[in-house]
Amino acid sequence: MQVYGDLQSGNCLKVKYIADALGVPYEWRDVPSGTGATTTSEFLALNPAAQVPVIVLDDGRVLAQSNAILRYLARDSRFLPADAFAAAKVDEWLFWEQYSHEPYVAVARAHVVYKGHTIESRDANLVARAEKALDRLEQALSGSDFLTGPALTIADIALLAYTRLSPQGGFDLTGRPAIRRWIAACEQELGLPALAAVN
Amino acid sequence: MQVYGDLQSGNCLKVKYIADALGVPYEWRDVPSGTGATTTSEFLALNPAAQVPVIVLDDGRVLAQSNAILRYLARDSRFLPADAFAAAKVDEWLFWEQYSHEPYVAVARAHVVYKGHTIESRDANLVARAEKALDRLEQALSGSDFLTGPALTIADIALLAYTRLSPQGGFDLTGRPAIRRWIAACEQELGLPALAAVN
Repeated sequence: MQVYGDLQSGNCLKVKYIADALGVPYEWRDVPSGTGATTTSEFLALNPAAQVPVIVLDDGRVLAQSNAILRYLARDSRFLPADAFAAAKVDEWLFWEQYSHEPYVAVARAHVVYKGHTIESRDANLVARAEKALDRLEQALSGSDFLTGPALTIADIALLAYTRLSPQGGFDLTGRPAIRRWIAACEQELGLPALAAVN
Repeated sequence: MQVYGDLQSGNCLKVKYIADALGVPYEWRDVPSGTGATTTSEFLALNPAAQVPVIVLDDGRVLAQSNAILRYLARDSRFLPADAFAAAKVDEWLFWEQYSHEPYVAVARAHVVYKGHTIESRDANLVARAEKALDRLEQALSGSDFLTGPALTIADIALLAYTRLSPQGGFDLTGRPAIRRWIAACEQELGLPALAAVN
């Protein structure tokens, strides 16, 4: 399998996290964000939506969308429940992540990391929505080890990626103890370096 | 099953489309958008994300997120392929819809339908991104009967809902013949009234 992605992107890191956790071998092909590398004719032939990550299976079949890739790679593994309703509750988080978390938490971080915004000059509406998403996560994790219960699933991997990087965008996790405990638990489960080393 | 939703919302219509197509009986509980009805303590107990649609199964289990509901209701039916990779290509469209189509096509329409914007006063950035999403759909449908091949799946149902309502937001489908053909094919397959009656 080939993975086209950028290791600075949470969406791409999701693919690395699940492939590493499952021991699926892959060749990483670096496609740096914000350089026009996703709008070349060669890349558009892979993914007309001009987004990373993209995976190319050994038989040449192509799959885009980070959460669709998570779901595909995690099928029949401990990271995606076999029970249909339990899997649907995982899906609920995957769609919430792409609609109500990533567009705010990740975009606010991107403005700081890639576009030179200061913490003070961040877009107030974006920050408010990001804070609301982090509050919702804190609430959900206060009563549960992982997002859908006692075991880590791809719902956690999807939310972990940008939540873990959110301090780079000026978001304060110190007042969110459930998120911090959950990040540490995910790091341990997935064999990732500790949060302090990332930020 | 109970469905909490608003029949003016494309996200909620997705649930009606799949339940009707499958012949799944349901009781529709009207939750009008923009009235604060999703932020009552009673509703937040159902869905802390304060969004419709939500389904409540006969045993009381609750599921939110329109595309997670589509996927759950369509399991083991002709609307979701049994093959894992074919299902992943459906997922690719479901996530694209929530990230790159709904936030622009649906939000621009909502500004016109609910917030009294005129076509001329729509947000230019929002409109540009919505037009790009519609162009991407037109491109995808130009070479294919439905989004993932010759058969209608929940990928089509997810994209149909707001694409079909997009003329209400000032979007012109007359120059997009593949989308128009596809809408008509979906309407026929799902037993919906023709587009002209909707707009």
